[in-house]
Amino acid sequence: MQEPKIIVLSTGSELTSGRSQDTNSSWIANELFGIGFSVFKFVVLPDNPVVLKEEIGSLAKGSTKESPVLMVMTGGLGPTEDDYTLEIACELAGVATIESSVARQRIEAFYRLRGRNFEEAMQTSIRQISVPETSIVLNNKVGIAPGFILKLGENANLCCMPGVPGEMTEMFRDELSPWISKTFSARELHSGFRFIWWMSESLFQKEFISKEESIRNGSVVWGVAAKRGYIRVSFQSGDRSLVDSLLEKLDLVYGAKSTSDVFEELPKILTERKITVGTAESCTGGLIAKTFTDRAGSSVYFMGGVVSYDNSVKSGLLGVKQSTLDEFGAVSRETAKEMAEGALRTLNTDYTISVTGIAGPGGGTAQKKVGLVYFGIARKDGNTEIHEHYFPFPRVSFREYAAHTGLYLLYDLLKRKG
Amino acid sequence: MQEPKIIVLSTGSELTSGRSQDTNSSWIANELFGIGFSVFKFVVLPDNPVVLKEEIGSLAKGSTKESPVLMVMTGGLGPTEDDYTLEIACELAGVATIESSVARQRIEAFYRLRGRNFEEAMQTSIRQISVPETSIVLNNKVGIAPGFILKLGENANLCCMPGVPGEMTEMFRDELSPWISKTFSARELHSGFRFIWWMSESLFQKEFISKEESIRNGSVVWGVAAKRGYIRVSFQSGDRSLVDSLLEKLDLVYGAKSTSDVFEELPKILTERKITVGTAESCTGGLIAKTFTDRAGSSVYFMGGVVSYDNSVKSGLLGVKQSTLDEFGAVSRETAKEMAEGALRTLNTDYTISVTGIAGPGGGTAQKKVGLVYFGIARKDGNTEIHEHYFPFPRVSFREYAAHTGLYLLYDLLKRKG
Repeated sequence: MQEPKIIVLSTGSELTSGRSQDTNSSWIANELFGIGFSVFKFVVLPDNPVVLKEEIGSLAKGSTKESPVLMVMTGGLGPTEDDYTLEIACELAGVATIESSVARQRIEAFYRLRGRNFEEAMQTSIRQISVPETSIVLNNKVGIAPGFILKLGENANLCCMPGVPGEMTEMFRDELSPWISKTFSARELHSGFRFIWWMSESLFQKEFISKEESIRNGSVVWGVAAKRGYIRVSFQSGDRSLVDSLLEKLDLVYGAKSTSDVFEELPKILTERKITVGTAESCTGGLIAKTFTDRAGSSVYFMGGVVSYDNSVKSGLLGVKQSTLDEFGAVSRETAKEMAEGALRTLNTDYTISVTGIAGPGGGTAQKKVGLVYFGIARKDGNTEIHEHYFPFPRVSFREYAAHTGLYLLYDLLKRKG
Repeated sequence: MQEPKIIVLSTGSELTSGRSQDTNSSWIANELFGIGFSVFKFVVLPDNPVVLKEEIGSLAKGSTKESPVLMVMTGGLGPTEDDYTLEIACELAGVATIESSVARQRIEAFYRLRGRNFEEAMQTSIRQISVPETSIVLNNKVGIAPGFILKLGENANLCCMPGVPGEMTEMFRDELSPWISKTFSARELHSGFRFIWWMSESLFQKEFISKEESIRNGSVVWGVAAKRGYIRVSFQSGDRSLVDSLLEKLDLVYGAKSTSDVFEELPKILTERKITVGTAESCTGGLIAKTFTDRAGSSVYFMGGVVSYDNSVKSGLLGVKQSTLDEFGAVSRETAKEMAEGALRTLNTDYTISVTGIAGPGGGTAQKKVGLVYFGIARKDGNTEIHEHYFPFPRVSFREYAAHTGLYLLYDLLKRKG
């Protein structure tokens, strides 16, 4: 079938009221991109059956043979009274519901295992294991409610999955994604990306993008996302060589500031070279340690850290000299150096990252403004490197800039040391 | 004017491709809720002028005197070639652009301050300081591009703001929100909420909500959002006494597990009572320290923490006995106790929170499963409390459950001690 016009739908009054954030839509869009499809738009709707029916019905009506519509929807399959997805789907298709036998087996096994009163519990669960007649069932290997794919007319399909991210992601990858690939023809697309550190979107466009003929003439589509501390630049094209040559050019122009995904690469390097690391954090307050340990398996290389928020902890645990704090201040090259070197001794690791800065909004002076930050990268077998940066951004952004930069600086040093 | 049908729009191909997450829409919806308005739906669109024009045009056409349409849009006002918002808005309204004089003064002052070549830089910035003729200008006090409010017909308004969250949030609060309040009549709504700890949505609905007559008959609207470690339950009604009586009942039924916003309340208590705290974290890897220091002003009560990921750091920095680790293991009541008490000595604070658990996916055994976690709350003037919990969830969720629970346990203890 033709490449479809894909609309990603989410339902949940907690989403449209702003109490919760819809993370499913962008996850799905990213997965679809990975298998060669692009998304036309996202729509987020409240748990209101009238609104849901009108929106889904009108999207289905807009489908044609040349432009079939594929709706990928999450949410509204739960056990509560404000879950309307199944009901609306059946009404629009004019079909009844039936029980999914696979889901019933799963739920029976689940309750038996827990020794719960099966019959009573089933009353609240029964609605969750129903799917529309004539639909293709998407099995749920994590939770209870199955998903389904339902035809709403000749050229429109509605795919419904639970809103719980852990259930949806498994279901999408194992069940829905293969079906989409089999059913529709995707474009053959090549893509690649780089992080460019401490770069702004507009400067990048002016000094790089505006000069590229392959982008101007549309042979390559580019995208840029501003992250904290770097921009993520991506290229897509039907012609792999055009993408590759742009990536090479980025590396040439930006040198060490052009990298692959540092958050993926750094753990690989540390694991392969059997290097251990630790942290000494002031202004980031544990965010660097937290970022290291977000990854399963990080205990191989990440030993621990000290969050030395107060000066008493800088001197007490890290051995920063009182005279250094008095003479140069807590936010200084000298303190960053002693923090990193103190952590190296205390934590007994091969490398440490230290960071001390002024996150704001208070605490700045004429000499040391909010946004100033020093990093130390200490190592057992060499001198400590000190880096000064200035990130004049709101507190949350500042901390993310600083944490990302800390990881980049260690990555960059390890790259230079081969 | 009548209460409007509000649609929150975001534009950005980085959003619909899943490279970035749209956080603006839910922030805006939450703010609107706070001033008595509810959002009809969110729509997220790619940077495609055809798609943008069709969507905005068709939403404007759907407006009537009885149901005026208010579109609140973010994104597409930047300096790059894929920013189409201004152009599309002018086309739909049939007006030209003019320069915002306030924005020109700001940008001139900005470049003068930095001593940059003003004329050259202006070339890339000039597009950003234009707004549609006849529009109401929304000043940007953080960045360059102003926003605007433009009439697209008798009963439709399009409000455009930059997509950068730091710019948008200031503009919304200072400029757009007052205009919306002045222009449209909101419902007079009273609302209130509670966190209920370690509770599931479906159990809560069954044992509490299903029995409430004021909810069944529609006098009170309720909402629930599952967070990590707690659910956030909210009630809204035109009648304040109905909301208050439900909140009182929650407190009665759930006791200490029913709380206000712990993340707001705990810092207040610590500041008011002049209590200092520190952390000793294993499985959460710095997330509790990070959560404490997310807040400006946290240096008053948060002194620091130790991330003792590896056992060598548990014994080295926190003084956990090797015999304790050998006999009971790193994930045990005994280790949690020694971690908390060690941190109390090392960090010299009034209270400490320790946490040690199995975040997974690896590391579980038959006796100690992935998801098991122990917390210690130590204090200078009393015995250490140990709490055992079991959070059998994926790694990221587990860590958030554990970090939130750690903060709750300290909050709960301080509440009990009055």
